Amino acid sequence: MNVYKAPIRDLLFALEAFDYSERVASLEEFRDFDIETVEAILQSGADVLTKELLPLNRVGDEEGLKWDPQTGEVTMPTGFRDAYRMLVREGMIGITGPAQYGGGGGPESLSTTLGEISTATNKSFSMAPGLTRGLVDALLHHATEAQKDKYLPKLVSGEWSGTMCLTEPQCGTDLGLVRSKATAEGDHFRISGTKIWISFGEHDMSDNIIHFVLARLPDAPEGIKGLSVFIVPKLLDDGATNGVMCTGLEHKMGIKASPTCVIELDNSIGYLVGKPHKGMRAMFTMMNVARLHVGMEGIALGEIAYQTAVAFAKDRRQMRALDSEKSEFDQPADCIMVHPDIRRQLLNIKATTEAMRALAVWGAVEHDVSTYHPDAAVRQEADDLVQLLTPLIKAYCTERGFFNISDAMQVCGGAGYTTDWDIEQYMRDERIALIYEGTNHIQALDLVGRKLPRHGGRLFQVFSARITSLIRSSADEPKMSEFLAPLKAISKQTTGVTMELAGRAMEDNEVAGAVGTNYLTLLSLCALTYAMAVEARHALANPGPHSDTKLKTVRWFNDMVLPEADSLVRKVAAGKGNMFDFDVDEF
Amino acid sequence: MNVYKAPIRDLLFALEAFDYSERVASLEEFRDFDIETVEAILQSGADVLTKELLPLNRVGDEEGLKWDPQTGEVTMPTGFRDAYRMLVREGMIGITGPAQYGGGGGPESLSTTLGEISTATNKSFSMAPGLTRGLVDALLHHATEAQKDKYLPKLVSGEWSGTMCLTEPQCGTDLGLVRSKATAEGDHFRISGTKIWISFGEHDMSDNIIHFVLARLPDAPEGIKGLSVFIVPKLLDDGATNGVMCTGLEHKMGIKASPTCVIELDNSIGYLVGKPHKGMRAMFTMMNVARLHVGMEGIALGEIAYQTAVAFAKDRRQMRALDSEKSEFDQPADCIMVHPDIRRQLLNIKATTEAMRALAVWGAVEHDVSTYHPDAAVRQEADDLVQLLTPLIKAYCTERGFFNISDAMQVCGGAGYTTDWDIEQYMRDERIALIYEGTNHIQALDLVGRKLPRHGGRLFQVFSARITSLIRSSADEPKMSEFLAPLKAISKQTTGVTMELAGRAMEDNEVAGAVGTNYLTLLSLCALTYAMAVEARHALANPGPHSDTKLKTVRWFNDMVLPEADSLVRKVAAGKGNMFDFDVDEF
Repeated sequence: MNVYKAPIRDLLFALEAFDYSERVASLEEFRDFDIETVEAILQSGADVLTKELLPLNRVGDEEGLKWDPQTGEVTMPTGFRDAYRMLVREGMIGITGPAQYGGGGGPESLSTTLGEISTATNKSFSMAPGLTRGLVDALLHHATEAQKDKYLPKLVSGEWSGTMCLTEPQCGTDLGLVRSKATAEGDHFRISGTKIWISFGEHDMSDNIIHFVLARLPDAPEGIKGLSVFIVPKLLDDGATNGVMCTGLEHKMGIKASPTCVIELDNSIGYLVGKPHKGMRAMFTMMNVARLHVGMEGIALGEIAYQTAVAFAKDRRQMRALDSEKSEFDQPADCIMVHPDIRRQLLNIKATTEAMRALAVWGAVEHDVSTYHPDAAVRQEADDLVQLLTPLIKAYCTERGFFNISDAMQVCGGAGYTTDWDIEQYMRDERIALIYEGTNHIQALDLVGRKLPRHGGRLFQVFSARITSLIRSSADEPKMSEFLAPLKAISKQTTGVTMELAGRAMEDNEVAGAVGTNYLTLLSLCALTYAMAVEARHALANPGPHSDTKLKTVRWFNDMVLPEADSLVRKVAAGKGNMFDFDVDEF
Repeated sequence: MNVYKAPIRDLLFALEAFDYSERVASLEEFRDFDIETVEAILQSGADVLTKELLPLNRVGDEEGLKWDPQTGEVTMPTGFRDAYRMLVREGMIGITGPAQYGGGGGPESLSTTLGEISTATNKSFSMAPGLTRGLVDALLHHATEAQKDKYLPKLVSGEWSGTMCLTEPQCGTDLGLVRSKATAEGDHFRISGTKIWISFGEHDMSDNIIHFVLARLPDAPEGIKGLSVFIVPKLLDDGATNGVMCTGLEHKMGIKASPTCVIELDNSIGYLVGKPHKGMRAMFTMMNVARLHVGMEGIALGEIAYQTAVAFAKDRRQMRALDSEKSEFDQPADCIMVHPDIRRQLLNIKATTEAMRALAVWGAVEHDVSTYHPDAAVRQEADDLVQLLTPLIKAYCTERGFFNISDAMQVCGGAGYTTDWDIEQYMRDERIALIYEGTNHIQALDLVGRKLPRHGGRLFQVFSARITSLIRSSADEPKMSEFLAPLKAISKQTTGVTMELAGRAMEDNEVAGAVGTNYLTLLSLCALTYAMAVEARHALANPGPHSDTKLKTVRWFNDMVLPEADSLVRKVAAGKGNMFDFDVDEF
């Protein structure tokens, strides 16, 4: 059963709370994207996506993909190809692509918010344009003008789609182990190797597939500093094949309409992007945006699962209210919305989803400022925040989103466990988001091993300064005090833990690995509390029904979700514990 | 990939730590079941189950069930029928059934421990004898001698299987809404109605299926006090059909080899069990054992997922150790077992699984004592503990088991998300355990609404007395102090919360509903800490490799899992929060 109403009002609320109009729409590049325009695009996007993609979601799960072992061709589920081509024709794929290559030219703030809606309606499908978008970003920053002119227009429109060919059988997280080989031949290279986990590595929706392939030149140093990156088209300019073959599909728990391919490159023609041995740079370019979008997956599927559970709960009658004043005695039983535990579960989902949405929108706004603001210092500060927030958004939102979907299922009882209510598909589809685009622990290592120490801790200082600034500038608003008190408390607690961790990690770098995941969750709660306080301030300044509900939701978050920080503080303090007292055979 | 070694050593360790030999094997009824006999039965059971059922587990998931809409017949996946009949022939189904009806006569302590192994090898399959066992218990306590003589021998052997027909379309949790009708006719009744969620309501493994059906007599009072229970065989004595038809199967996220049936009863002949309108009594009889066994499902699937993740982690090489002394520089990368976060996740699973196993074994031992001890006072005390521990075991173990499986998947990265490693099936199969046999929140309501207030709080006092007794009797053992300190702390904390909750719940009974789930988790952590301290004492008294590892595992539990209590204390203190400030339309 498909239940979905795109949360446009709350997305706009988050954009406005984080000063989208002043900080993004005021930039030269985005003057055509005022908040009313963003609203119109989100609305028309939501209309199309809900109409075209949502009905295909269960079809894709049930029908899955067909792979022909002779040709390597992959056939998408019924309706996917037509829907994709319609979206290309309507300009939906390119809506946030760069204007100079035919895109709509919208900001990341639009792309992120539209991305939530797109993922909610059909996560498998939405991965295709998402991957293409990543390739567009990488080429924009690292390709030659000739390469850009050749590839970007069709990638931006979606006529061609893109992939990221990183992983190989012997390496997932550890790309230093990549073995694919590239040898020079005239103006191009010849690439051979086996790539695995290649999402949309082969499919029938676009006219061509442009693979972005990590490989090693003959003179390359070992490890991650010896990787170069190449454009390898599935079809060459004359339409001839290029030795790129899908030799198998993974069988997965979810995202069953997203082909996860084994790709064999057999002497395929490739074009070097950027300098030799500097391939990881281009990968890192797209990583922040890609991780932001993966974080949105947890928000998107948590939201649609929540809406499904609310629809179920409003309809279902079981037992009597514990408070007899809430009973409807003319009915055989009361609506389960009167039961405290149903409310508790639904409000936990609602509060965390809205807090995560605010956090992700904040990250997107900072991304736009970091890229386009005319003042280098402003760009730098925004970039510091993007760097710090990205691992939080990717890891926290995917994990919490998964738990939220599980809670939504629980609200529906046995019905939620059946395919009748789709929640079970959301759970299966969401689970991979904790793993791909850098596992959640890789995010934690990125946070504690790279982002915290960088520039003498400057990123965390910038983050703390934002919190301090909100507290100071709201000090005169009596209605803000209830929201500032928990923010002050969690900020103080988190800062203390961060300082202590910095000291301990210098003495023993295994400590950072051991506590990274719990620390990331703790810092995420701090960031979410801040994001909710920002929304509370915006709500107080803009009274109305949505603002009224928002204030209640922020209160719930502070009273019922934020206490999770207490346990995390203790877990981080416990450090490695006795984990290395165990011999491998004792596991 | 099937990885499973039955955790017999740890099961026996738990039994011995909870004085199985002194408390259960010493009982008249179980003198043939000394610990060596239990070990032999577990070992031979594990051999058979691992050989016969484990290979069918993935088969069952992939092939699923066939239902013929014309006849209503359900065909089990390939191999299930033969395996079932082999287990009947070998006496495996009846091994813990009552001796006077042909069973092996073993204690619940054996049934529970063997149940873990059976569920781990094939959860869907194991549900069939589990349900039959529940019916056997109900008939033993409530049927006439003639009924027992007629039905029990074949149910105990497994030649016939049993079901529980409770739920109807309009009622899941709320059985007071049951509408199925029973009318007297001679020495029997005629039953009509629609039952849903009937596990193994129809299948082809046994010669007959005995349905245990809740229905309402014409003169029955409304609500739950007007339900009677009836034996309704699928086939009558002469082999004729009895108007019992499977009119559909649910399509579920997991347990795809367990038929979840819609059962239509059309004027079916039924035999009243017990007194009119007292049907719920028989249901409650089997509920404690059934809930204990469902709790074991979280332990069982968490264990097999853990073993799978350990096998993966010991084989997989990625990145270098953070501590270079742990690196193997003759290899291209280090085994991921050196990475702190891999150890953290695996140890979290190991520690909680062993703690939950100890808790469940404790519950099973008390169950045996409560049923068979010659001294009524001893039986009473044991029963108090069974009543209190059952909701903890059912709810905590199923939820934690689900999270543990998710963590095991995370250890395996992308591979864990594929069907190659089976963990994704364990996750799907386990998820229902949080819902069925009384949702986890129903367990919480049972705990805070019935078990805590009963007899002026006596159940909790008995529980606390056990903790105090351990602390006092171990006070002279210096090596126990490290394990007693956290037990004292959590016990004090939990007692305080319990006392406060009792006061608040009297003033506002919605508070109990609002905090029940978090309170149950808190009390579970207290019970688990006690169970781990009992195991630590047993380990100290019985030195050896398993005991060495056990002590390390208890330390990990206390340092890394127990801190989760802090957040729960705060959440319980927050009570209802502002949950009723939200109008239904604000969700």
